[in-house]
Amino acid sequence: MGISKRGFLQGVAAGAGVLAATGKASAATTATTGTVGGRRSYQRIACEEACTTPEVVKELSRLANGVPSMKSGPIAGPFMPDLLDIGAGRVRGMDAAGIDVQILSLVSPGVQLFAPDTAIALARDVNDRMADAIRLYPARFGALAVVAPQAPAETAKELQRCIQTLKFNGALINSHTNGEYLDQQKYWPVLEAIEALGVPLYLHPRDPAPGMEVPLAIPGFAVGWGYAVETGTHLLHLMAGGVLDRFPKLQVVLGHLGETLPFLLDRLDNRYAWQTSVFRLKALPRKPSEYLREQVILTTSGMNYAAPVRAAIEAMGIERVLFSADHPMEVQADAVTEMEGIRLTATERRKMFEDNARRVFRLTAGAKA
Amino acid sequence: MGISKRGFLQGVAAGAGVLAATGKASAATTATTGTVGGRRSYQRIACEEACTTPEVVKELSRLANGVPSMKSGPIAGPFMPDLLDIGAGRVRGMDAAGIDVQILSLVSPGVQLFAPDTAIALARDVNDRMADAIRLYPARFGALAVVAPQAPAETAKELQRCIQTLKFNGALINSHTNGEYLDQQKYWPVLEAIEALGVPLYLHPRDPAPGMEVPLAIPGFAVGWGYAVETGTHLLHLMAGGVLDRFPKLQVVLGHLGETLPFLLDRLDNRYAWQTSVFRLKALPRKPSEYLREQVILTTSGMNYAAPVRAAIEAMGIERVLFSADHPMEVQADAVTEMEGIRLTATERRKMFEDNARRVFRLTAGAKA
Repeated sequence: MGISKRGFLQGVAAGAGVLAATGKASAATTATTGTVGGRRSYQRIACEEACTTPEVVKELSRLANGVPSMKSGPIAGPFMPDLLDIGAGRVRGMDAAGIDVQILSLVSPGVQLFAPDTAIALARDVNDRMADAIRLYPARFGALAVVAPQAPAETAKELQRCIQTLKFNGALINSHTNGEYLDQQKYWPVLEAIEALGVPLYLHPRDPAPGMEVPLAIPGFAVGWGYAVETGTHLLHLMAGGVLDRFPKLQVVLGHLGETLPFLLDRLDNRYAWQTSVFRLKALPRKPSEYLREQVILTTSGMNYAAPVRAAIEAMGIERVLFSADHPMEVQADAVTEMEGIRLTATERRKMFEDNARRVFRLTAGAKA
Repeated sequence: MGISKRGFLQGVAAGAGVLAATGKASAATTATTGTVGGRRSYQRIACEEACTTPEVVKELSRLANGVPSMKSGPIAGPFMPDLLDIGAGRVRGMDAAGIDVQILSLVSPGVQLFAPDTAIALARDVNDRMADAIRLYPARFGALAVVAPQAPAETAKELQRCIQTLKFNGALINSHTNGEYLDQQKYWPVLEAIEALGVPLYLHPRDPAPGMEVPLAIPGFAVGWGYAVETGTHLLHLMAGGVLDRFPKLQVVLGHLGETLPFLLDRLDNRYAWQTSVFRLKALPRKPSEYLREQVILTTSGMNYAAPVRAAIEAMGIERVLFSADHPMEVQADAVTEMEGIRLTATERRKMFEDNARRVFRLTAGAKA
């Protein structure tokens, strides 16, 4: 808990419950059903909520010995039971935390470490499991399709099934695949399919690409810093490589409040104009900030802190800032309490928790009639 | 010019002059003498202001063919005349922009590319030149000592001369030296000297360390993003490597509002606690945010934008946020106009522009009697 949050604990809107004077978030003091005296007028939709299946875990475990970074990845953590639960237990946790809808996605690094055949087979299987969860709890879950960028043609077909048949809400890719970013032409069929289907691409972090992996393996900072660097770098490669112009309707969702990019918005513009002019580089048709404000969406996963949330809203506009809890890597009850403790207008709160997610992810789950 | 600045153009304090309604900064509309009707009650001290000498340029040019990144570095830019001018022309520019004092430093990458003997000889020479400038304009200049980390023992001695004899205000290192960060033990004598002399270390960006250099060479984003990643990574290596504990009085200054770290303050704490606990890493004695709030100082170079400035002040406290113009890589008149356009209290303004710099850099230049 930082000073940044304590300044704004007064004036908490309906639904937050009582926050201790120390600024210490506690599930016990939070609205545990998601409503306080029936006053909450919006639903809480969480957009970056991870799950997995025994088959994926088994396949990852086979690789883990050969991949050093896997040893500190999610499958090595204590999250396994929560990741594997995409049924009643998960829903109970959501109830306790006051979260109405979770948009499910396969935990990082997804199927991106596997051989193409294995990857696409597992992607289809996980997509089926998430579809099952939605069928069982149609009011509580949405889903982002698992993507196997290393099998682009098959993935394009699978994406069609996920969005059109299974009514999923988008697709998720965990940054690089075999060290390559999505600006490589071979991955364009995947982006083309996502754009054509009218859903967003969630660009989620994973361990940094080869080269950056060693300098960013700072003990204790591999996630807090390394993930942001990896994913922010990937987004800028998409921009600089002309991919956002090639697919101008593509909306890219970044977690963790945009992996620091919104805070650099004006500096990116300023230095981009300077570098391209002085060194006579071919400049993009738009300013970096225009790509960000037109084709990038932020979620708050792991960043429920007043100072950066307010700055991100100011930089990007409230329409582009969505709530995420990052379950189970973060404590979802704390995410709710902390986010509700931030000074927002009623309109901002409703947009961040519900309206933006419904629009961006075309989400109907749990919508009031 | 971003939306982030436009929201706060009303209520500009004394000294800013009139800003066009478009939010477009213009030197012509700025207080060109640094005072408007005598109302400005503080001086403007700029802390990250670059210069060079013909000898350094000559030595860098010899290397440039063999160092690809040099081709896009400062010496390839149009800044040469301004960098070489550490006399009357520079002072005229400061007058026009309303900057009272510049703390001079050798432009990145300093002497860090040279063989140790060349590096220390050039460091001494540049330090002498900056001392000359201070002698000529004692009210207008301070200086940060040039450091040759590749010659640690000689540098420790030279630092003593710079601080004790020449009355310099700190030391500046441009991130990595031969791909190594300052957590390597061989560089500790330099840090020990800086700490003992009671001045801060300015950790300035340069092209990213080997490994990160390729993925971060994103056309047009090498500075706006690559510099922040390189320098933020370096700072976290100092923290994780126990260097800030070994030298607990060392104050490290980061430009560009802290290379994004203040916006991640709480997330770094959260994920650090999580990673060290789950993976049983030996944790540091303090939280990441404590190191940042106790041993890191920010300057605003290139980041004169309301949203991140307000967020950085909230995260780090006003005592740790100092103004920089980043002359000549940025237009110093614009930096003044833009920073004066940001909503700050009179106390915040005085601290950011003057008081903090005087305290942190023990600066007497231009101080009113």
